[in-house]
Amino acid sequence: MRIAIAGAGAVGTSVLELAEEYGHTVVGIADSSSAATGDEQVDVESVLQRKEETGAVGTQPAGELFKTEYDVLVEATPTTLGDAQPAFSHCQRALEEDRHVVLANKGPVAERYTDLRKIETQSNGSIRFEATVGGAIPAIRTIEDYGPEKVLAARGVLNGTANFVLTRMAAEGLSYEKVLSEAQELGVAETDPSFDVEGTDAALKCVIMANVLTGGDPEFTLSDATVEGITDIPGSALDLAAQDNKTIRLIGEATRDHVKVGPRLVPENGPLSVTGTRNIVQIDTEHAGRLNLSGRGAGGPETATAVLADVGRLG
Amino acid sequence: MRIAIAGAGAVGTSVLELAEEYGHTVVGIADSSSAATGDEQVDVESVLQRKEETGAVGTQPAGELFKTEYDVLVEATPTTLGDAQPAFSHCQRALEEDRHVVLANKGPVAERYTDLRKIETQSNGSIRFEATVGGAIPAIRTIEDYGPEKVLAARGVLNGTANFVLTRMAAEGLSYEKVLSEAQELGVAETDPSFDVEGTDAALKCVIMANVLTGGDPEFTLSDATVEGITDIPGSALDLAAQDNKTIRLIGEATRDHVKVGPRLVPENGPLSVTGTRNIVQIDTEHAGRLNLSGRGAGGPETATAVLADVGRLG
Repeated sequence: MRIAIAGAGAVGTSVLELAEEYGHTVVGIADSSSAATGDEQVDVESVLQRKEETGAVGTQPAGELFKTEYDVLVEATPTTLGDAQPAFSHCQRALEEDRHVVLANKGPVAERYTDLRKIETQSNGSIRFEATVGGAIPAIRTIEDYGPEKVLAARGVLNGTANFVLTRMAAEGLSYEKVLSEAQELGVAETDPSFDVEGTDAALKCVIMANVLTGGDPEFTLSDATVEGITDIPGSALDLAAQDNKTIRLIGEATRDHVKVGPRLVPENGPLSVTGTRNIVQIDTEHAGRLNLSGRGAGGPETATAVLADVGRLG
Repeated sequence: MRIAIAGAGAVGTSVLELAEEYGHTVVGIADSSSAATGDEQVDVESVLQRKEETGAVGTQPAGELFKTEYDVLVEATPTTLGDAQPAFSHCQRALEEDRHVVLANKGPVAERYTDLRKIETQSNGSIRFEATVGGAIPAIRTIEDYGPEKVLAARGVLNGTANFVLTRMAAEGLSYEKVLSEAQELGVAETDPSFDVEGTDAALKCVIMANVLTGGDPEFTLSDATVEGITDIPGSALDLAAQDNKTIRLIGEATRDHVKVGPRLVPENGPLSVTGTRNIVQIDTEHAGRLNLSGRGAGGPETATAVLADVGRLG
């Protein structure tokens, strides 16, 4: 397939780098200010070099991306909430031109799921969005293959930053502020970590899974989620939990009825107490009990493999 | 899709019972001595009742199954080794008539993988075999979606009987013979448990995964596997392991170079020490690190969900 990539951050550039290995070509990549395009394939090395040296991927206007002969648009621009723009317009344009869309951007599928699906039904193109939930973990595909109506709930540890902080607090007996600071130094937490530690990121992922479970009817958006983060957990809470062979994890849960994210006591050695930045998606099914799927929930290459698995399913 | 089911054991009858819920019809089901067929759909209740009361699913000769207007054959007859007959012939006939085949039977894909794939390339039908490895766990689909050539290894706990026995030995300090006897009473172990406790079942599953990793070149069969079971593990070995916070599990591993099954020391609280009859498939990937997929590895309904997920991917 010929891929056009909107977004040149960690995920976009990883898709650029790995696409050929997966048998695809990248005919264009754009960031907010520019685009690089190629008739058959962009020059990966010079794109990466230009991005590193100048901050821009290309020398053409960004909009040129949509004029390439692409089969599938990869939407990997930064997640935005509410109207999910400009990502939503990118998806809309591609679908209206009968192209496929693979999202790594959570915005359109978390905040405007039914709008997006409506455009999809009128298009010869399809949307896929494995990369929006759990990175390399095959969460959406497994729910889809199992049959969403036969999945009772999907829950898990869906944010690596928050999980890293809780793991370190428990392991070292350090305060939240200390561990967060350490996480920022390691690049595991952002300078403004609120999206992760307040539970918003995990909530968006659960909203997406809830929409898959319901098929968008009813439709969930972030405002439907009950969300509590990890910013108020004292070290003493973790000590107390440990005395009972438990620990605390930021758990998100999606059912057809609700989306909830919050800190929960979990057995210290159970499947939900993944450590560090690892994620887990736990799927409760009607006929096959519980599936536990854990792995790397974030990262450029990791998320790119989810994007490319989706591209493979379209071909 | 219209399904014809060869085999009326736990898996075949579960597929019969669940197919409608997944949007499919069963136009025929056969056991070794008979077949029941229907123009649109067999009568599920009377088939199940007849099977229970008489031991036979139908009143027609078994071969009538292949004369129905089926889209996909589900091969769920008992696994046989070597020439994998009669399952191989069932698959061959379906493919030669341009129908799809979904296998729950390990024989053809473990013992005659390239033979089967060759017939598939000459057919308009496709083969799928998720149900042959790990029951409800999406092992084959995940390797397939990720890209088999980018999977470095697949390993795990793949036999519920052996795992139940080891779990109970460690938990209760009982001997192998005592726990095996208990497992047989519970129906977790067969009267002749050798297929499970000697590691053959786990080895077949690893052989199948190895064939997926190599694409059948080189081809693996059971005879290529190095196999050791659990029949010689004394309780003292588990006690010793526990002192080191470890336990023993029957671990199977498949790479492009080898298939090995044998008892291994594993961390007591690590992902590979699933308990009871649960299974885990651990996939090491090139770009996304390690995925751990655990769940119910056996059972009629559980395996049927894997069969029906495969049917869904064909439609």
